[in-house]
Amino acid sequence: MENTVLKEGNMDKYINQAKTLLEALPYIQQFNNKIVVIKYGGSAMIDEDLKKSVIKDITMMKMVGMKPVVVHGGGKKISETLAKMGKESVFLDGLRVTDDETMEIAEMVLSGNINKGIVQMFHEQGIPAVGISGKDANTIIAEKKMPEGKDIGWVGEIQKVNPELMLTLMEEGFVPVIAPIATDEHHHTYNINADYVASAVGVALKAEKVVYLTDVEGVLRNINDPDSVLSRIAVEDVDRLIDNKVIQGGMIPKLQNCKKSILEGVNRVHILDGRQEHCLLLELFTNSGIGTMIYKSEE
Amino acid sequence: MENTVLKEGNMDKYINQAKTLLEALPYIQQFNNKIVVIKYGGSAMIDEDLKKSVIKDITMMKMVGMKPVVVHGGGKKISETLAKMGKESVFLDGLRVTDDETMEIAEMVLSGNINKGIVQMFHEQGIPAVGISGKDANTIIAEKKMPEGKDIGWVGEIQKVNPELMLTLMEEGFVPVIAPIATDEHHHTYNINADYVASAVGVALKAEKVVYLTDVEGVLRNINDPDSVLSRIAVEDVDRLIDNKVIQGGMIPKLQNCKKSILEGVNRVHILDGRQEHCLLLELFTNSGIGTMIYKSEE
Amino acid sequence: MENTVLKEGNMDKYINQAKTLLEALPYIQQFNNKIVVIKYGGSAMIDEDLKKSVIKDITMMKMVGMKPVVVHGGGKKISETLAKMGKESVFLDGLRVTDDETMEIAEMVLSGNINKGIVQMFHEQGIPAVGISGKDANTIIAEKKMPEGKDIGWVGEIQKVNPELMLTLMEEGFVPVIAPIATDEHHHTYNINADYVASAVGVALKAEKVVYLTDVEGVLRNINDPDSVLSRIAVEDVDRLIDNKVIQGGMIPKLQNCKKSILEGVNRVHILDGRQEHCLLLELFTNSGIGTMIYKSEE
Amino acid sequence: MENTVLKEGNMDKYINQAKTLLEALPYIQQFNNKIVVIKYGGSAMIDEDLKKSVIKDITMMKMVGMKPVVVHGGGKKISETLAKMGKESVFLDGLRVTDDETMEIAEMVLSGNINKGIVQMFHEQGIPAVGISGKDANTIIAEKKMPEGKDIGWVGEIQKVNPELMLTLMEEGFVPVIAPIATDEHHHTYNINADYVASAVGVALKAEKVVYLTDVEGVLRNINDPDSVLSRIAVEDVDRLIDNKVIQGGMIPKLQNCKKSILEGVNRVHILDGRQEHCLLLELFTNSGIGTMIYKSEE
Amino acid sequence: MENTVLKEGNMDKYINQAKTLLEALPYIQQFNNKIVVIKYGGSAMIDEDLKKSVIKDITMMKMVGMKPVVVHGGGKKISETLAKMGKESVFLDGLRVTDDETMEIAEMVLSGNINKGIVQMFHEQGIPAVGISGKDANTIIAEKKMPEGKDIGWVGEIQKVNPELMLTLMEEGFVPVIAPIATDEHHHTYNINADYVASAVGVALKAEKVVYLTDVEGVLRNINDPDSVLSRIAVEDVDRLIDNKVIQGGMIPKLQNCKKSILEGVNRVHILDGRQEHCLLLELFTNSGIGTMIYKSEE
Amino acid sequence: MENTVLKEGNMDKYINQAKTLLEALPYIQQFNNKIVVIKYGGSAMIDEDLKKSVIKDITMMKMVGMKPVVVHGGGKKISETLAKMGKESVFLDGLRVTDDETMEIAEMVLSGNINKGIVQMFHEQGIPAVGISGKDANTIIAEKKMPEGKDIGWVGEIQKVNPELMLTLMEEGFVPVIAPIATDEHHHTYNINADYVASAVGVALKAEKVVYLTDVEGVLRNINDPDSVLSRIAVEDVDRLIDNKVIQGGMIPKLQNCKKSILEGVNRVHILDGRQEHCLLLELFTNSGIGTMIYKSEE
Repeated sequence: MENTVLKEGNMDKYINQAKTLLEALPYIQQFNNKIVVIKYGGSAMIDEDLKKSVIKDITMMKMVGMKPVVVHGGGKKISETLAKMGKESVFLDGLRVTDDETMEIAEMVLSGNINKGIVQMFHEQGIPAVGISGKDANTIIAEKKMPEGKDIGWVGEIQKVNPELMLTLMEEGFVPVIAPIATDEHHHTYNINADYVASAVGVALKAEKVVYLTDVEGVLRNINDPDSVLSRIAVEDVDRLIDNKVIQGGMIPKLQNCKKSILEGVNRVHILDGRQEHCLLLELFTNSGIGTMIYKSEE
Repeated sequence: MENTVLKEGNMDKYINQAKTLLEALPYIQQFNNKIVVIKYGGSAMIDEDLKKSVIKDITMMKMVGMKPVVVHGGGKKISETLAKMGKESVFLDGLRVTDDETMEIAEMVLSGNINKGIVQMFHEQGIPAVGISGKDANTIIAEKKMPEGKDIGWVGEIQKVNPELMLTLMEEGFVPVIAPIATDEHHHTYNINADYVASAVGVALKAEKVVYLTDVEGVLRNINDPDSVLSRIAVEDVDRLIDNKVIQGGMIPKLQNCKKSILEGVNRVHILDGRQEHCLLLELFTNSGIGTMIYKSEE
Repeated sequence: MENTVLKEGNMDKYINQAKTLLEALPYIQQFNNKIVVIKYGGSAMIDEDLKKSVIKDITMMKMVGMKPVVVHGGGKKISETLAKMGKESVFLDGLRVTDDETMEIAEMVLSGNINKGIVQMFHEQGIPAVGISGKDANTIIAEKKMPEGKDIGWVGEIQKVNPELMLTLMEEGFVPVIAPIATDEHHHTYNINADYVASAVGVALKAEKVVYLTDVEGVLRNINDPDSVLSRIAVEDVDRLIDNKVIQGGMIPKLQNCKKSILEGVNRVHILDGRQEHCLLLELFTNSGIGTMIYKSEE
Repeated sequence: MENTVLKEGNMDKYINQAKTLLEALPYIQQFNNKIVVIKYGGSAMIDEDLKKSVIKDITMMKMVGMKPVVVHGGGKKISETLAKMGKESVFLDGLRVTDDETMEIAEMVLSGNINKGIVQMFHEQGIPAVGISGKDANTIIAEKKMPEGKDIGWVGEIQKVNPELMLTLMEEGFVPVIAPIATDEHHHTYNINADYVASAVGVALKAEKVVYLTDVEGVLRNINDPDSVLSRIAVEDVDRLIDNKVIQGGMIPKLQNCKKSILEGVNRVHILDGRQEHCLLLELFTNSGIGTMIYKSEE
Repeated sequence: MENTVLKEGNMDKYINQAKTLLEALPYIQQFNNKIVVIKYGGSAMIDEDLKKSVIKDITMMKMVGMKPVVVHGGGKKISETLAKMGKESVFLDGLRVTDDETMEIAEMVLSGNINKGIVQMFHEQGIPAVGISGKDANTIIAEKKMPEGKDIGWVGEIQKVNPELMLTLMEEGFVPVIAPIATDEHHHTYNINADYVASAVGVALKAEKVVYLTDVEGVLRNINDPDSVLSRIAVEDVDRLIDNKVIQGGMIPKLQNCKKSILEGVNRVHILDGRQEHCLLLELFTNSGIGTMIYKSEE
Repeated sequence: MENTVLKEGNMDKYINQAKTLLEALPYIQQFNNKIVVIKYGGSAMIDEDLKKSVIKDITMMKMVGMKPVVVHGGGKKISETLAKMGKESVFLDGLRVTDDETMEIAEMVLSGNINKGIVQMFHEQGIPAVGISGKDANTIIAEKKMPEGKDIGWVGEIQKVNPELMLTLMEEGFVPVIAPIATDEHHHTYNINADYVASAVGVALKAEKVVYLTDVEGVLRNINDPDSVLSRIAVEDVDRLIDNKVIQGGMIPKLQNCKKSILEGVNRVHILDGRQEHCLLLELFTNSGIGTMIYKSEE
């Protein structure tokens, strides 16, 4: 007759666990059944521990009733694969110059390697996921991007997001994982910046939140001081912060993109530090409020 | 431009919170969409802090995808109300002798006071609940209990549980709260032991678990030693433990009832110490394994 | 070979029966699938024969395709129970002064005794019923009533009726039976005049009719002449009848309440004499037109 | 301010009406949602008052929750139409010898005249009906009947009834009205005895009852004494009654057909006197029990 | 071991077949799930080969995903049947003067003979069809037509089409076949010109196309030259063509009817030569564009 | 007033088109709503004209009501890509020796390049398609293949096919396109022979047909005579044909796989010559019966 007598000594730990769970309760209630789009990229997609941490966080979000959608990038792996094939990566103003061969490699890496790898990681956590690209069911329609009139190849600008396939997958309980590839009416293939995909998908799905996992602490008041994170920015202040040079460099298009999503209907946008383990859970289920949140000030 | 700079010092606390949430994840996944019947009684129904703690625990269960059903007792309040009316409570072998007037008072207290009070507490937590008695929609059908042939009035033995109303309520997202009152084909009213109601409801709903909140630590190996809780009892061992006098007194019918539920299809039965704050969360979402679990040994 | 030869002599009776059924046909067609709220109170809730008569009438309504909803009162039983507990009933301008203890007793009597008794009576007729109070699923939200600024305790005024639970129950074929208890956002408990509950429930359910079972013949032109029942009152005439002192006393708030229901969308309101056996069937399925009907004159 | 004072003198009449309605209540409850197939023929299809009476009865059945299906005959009108066209009706052992031209006329009369006339009569009562023949959606499949090997033309024997179209119509709230015409796999047209259609449709729809409206009082113990109606015949006794010559002539195939329906699943079969006004209501909603009922004796 | 060696010689034929199928593909895609109302009449309803050809064409339409609805006429058969009964057909301005007896015969022929014959032909092709008249489920409501104030009997003008029954039948996969008979609120029976029925049904069903099978080549520019078919007429030009005497005689009301359908929402109307085998397939699935199409010029 | 006069001269061509369409009608009826799995590979996936031809054929299948599922291979492109990266393809008994790097490249080519290219081609035809791999939603579960005990890396053998995702996609009207990649319970990635995937998917979906597009004429009686195609092989004869050396070499495992599919529930399997334009339409919609069909002889 096997049986175990409870070790009384551990009880305090368990009681603290229970209390912590309950602290998350208001957040769980608040976000129940809400769609959250996660732009997954940077270190969080490379470091093995961070990868696990992100996927576990999203698993938790799914299990407590949220509806996560993952949009991933993959620039680093594309460059590596091009290099293996003896092809150099060329950038113009931060955009990858994308000839036919580059586009083919980029699509293979994004839709065939990174996308399916993320799906696999969800399955390790017991969550059924389905990896698609913007081509599937014409989910993302783009047109050629001509920055300052220059032709840099198959780099696209999003024209339209068709949410039907993503909604069907969520309805059946699957987590959609989306590679940032698009098509146009002439059936060309385009490489799209994953930030813009996350933002447009968020708008099309009427998401509660779009969360960007980045490699910075958030928006900094003083670019040299990582402790100077602005925790909240009203969407009305974005332009002024750019004019005042508080927001600079690569953060400018990122924030303009965030602003656009909010004006088009997303409730809140978060710029989180993906190098921080469990940054998603911290943001969603605790009072920590890490990173920078963009919001409408009338809230 | 209001904004807050993150206080770095709190981060450790928040990271621990996130980790605690993740420790609960496997349990959340395991019990997703499962029905858990909670027999609510004893101190947990009297002490104000414990009341809050139980309702919050059940709220958490609901929010992470479980389907809780609450069955409550109320003997103490019945006795108090009878006393106020100048009527003494009479017991025979632990059963309340229930004449017409006692039955009327008991029903008013159970269906009209305790039942609606629990509903109210759920609403304080933002969870819609519906209080019913076994009379509503003929949910519980009983017949007269005649212990050793003695007529002790309107004390009933459950003949059948009709789960339709409870299923309809759960389908619509309501938590059913059930008063232990039954009816028979002649439309009499019966008082039923709430333990038996919980057990029969668990069987009728094909519940994953039935959990009893009691005023004991669990089943004790040595009745004088509260540290001697048997954490697991295989259903096959119940009879032997009774024969060996390990299980004694009021615990005997309780365990026989647990055994019956398991043989009729409930997966596991737990006897928890309702005096322990958050005992439900501890049991369901941590490794603490408090109280005593009855299980089928072939597991 | 058992068989019976028809007794010819009875045929006339049966043919008259068939003809009577057919006289009801146009009414059955007219009210098919329509919601009718019945305020059940007064003698019809006390006299054993009248009780049976009312429940049978409602059973008939349900069987021929109407959707009845029952709202009950219970003042007399509350006073009796308070008396048993040595507590006097105090009234101010016809409203029960309701301290904490009175509220507790009133709720027990209404939700725990009368409500479940009515459910039971429906089951005797083979009709599945479910008894709820305005607390369940937050069905009735109230606020404190302060008649002429006076605090008379837990007497509430209805703010909102949430029809979801009642609609769910009707959808599944159950007759909802409603105790006139409400809650507020601070989770207090309120006693509500059942007439007002019937009226507000009728509006929230977009009922075809609200029918009040009372202990008077209807609205009388001459208060001393029970034969002077006004069979129809246009809603536009209510105020004039009050000004002219035709309508007096307790009938004034009753008619103002009827007027309000009609202005908010109920089609017709009936004040019936609940002391008349089968008054509901008489009103609904024959040309008798007993009692007083309030209607919009543009009909 | 128009209003009417109630004439007290009529109340007795109305109260009797209400009581009569309630006497029908148990029958209404018993047959709720049950399918009843009515074979409509004989005088009830010719006399204007009887026609109205039958259609009103069926309207009542529909309104109180039953699902009526009407199967009609039309031999008399076929003969009249043939006569108008100068064609004589020829019968062999009670079966119409049906050459091509006769078949064409018969189908026109049945599907184009009588069928649509009945539909029209239902519309006069506010009941939506749809007239079909056994050809529509291949509802009735037949093969050639060769009584004693003789070819009498397009007289068919039922092979199969496909209930889908009738079920679809009932689901949408329509009363199906069925002309006794069938088809075979070679797409010929057959004239079928309406009694057999009613019986086969009853079996295919798993009907509670099949009711034959005839021009006799029922099955008579003494064929010369219309008062000797056998009110109940156990299905097991049918053969004996034929052997004993109690059942004779045209009643023999009628009763064999009834017996067959019951053995194949119809609950009860009634042979009613269609010349009796409101015979359907009398049988279904009163204790009169007119006509003859065939039943399984183990009831 | 039975097996056949492919005869190589036939391959060319088969490859051409495959190519022909593919030429139909764009049309199949274009009309997928669209409702097409076919007015079936004239030679196509008399000649045995043409009958088969029409039914096969409609079968093909159904199988590739269109939703055909058939409206038929039957004037010729009505006249023949009247003649057989010794009754002459009388016309006034092209309308059949319809006394009671004529109406009865017309209805029998249309609803009982032609309608069921078409149903039968669909069954020969494996397509389930259901024949109804405008009386069934009150599908067509008419009033008396009084051309220039003259009473010509039971000739009706359509007031309303209730599409419910047709939609129910299509939903279940049946092809509705409609006899041009209508009813009014007094439950009279009317004979309706089938062209007008097709047009009104097309409008009520929001059809993509209404197609008239006629006995002319289409609308001719020169009435004496069958090669002068106008292949397209903009709806705006109809009046001018009538004023210019291009459209004359019986074609005038036909085209005014077409114009009306288009103005009320039908997308396109086709006047086809029903004497041309497979004219429906030719029109719908090839580039041939036979007959005359009426369209809105802004297309 | 623009209008076109019909060129009479083309009518013959169009009439032949209509007749050809009708010849396909019985096949369209036969395969309505049936699932057909197409293994797409070989020349049909390389030659630009053949690619178009195959996709158009499948588009036609979809439009006339069939439910196509595409499984593709891609060995040639894998070898080319490996070569570009300076890696040689190694085969053992026809199986690609698959180390980690090879697996990564193979997955990128299959899931990221070929799969999405096929999706794109369907969109060019107006058919919404969704490309998945066996990893998505755990659609294909495999284990390591150890041919004769040899470890050849990540080459898998199918253990199970989960049809849910494919069924969801078909339900919503999407054509599923499947890359032959699988996963196992340890979340490894496997390369699977596409023939086996087609066969297992056919069984899991209870497909009517599995069709293999190959680069041979079919199964040849005389391997040197391309005219000696066996048009039908009973599944019972497969073993004998292998024993008799009629079936040799690479055709042996292909046919054993076909046999297995049929024994597990697929109705028929076809081995078609993918080099023949429109071979799918020829096989499905004409009498040509090209290639070899494997069937159960009891048909």
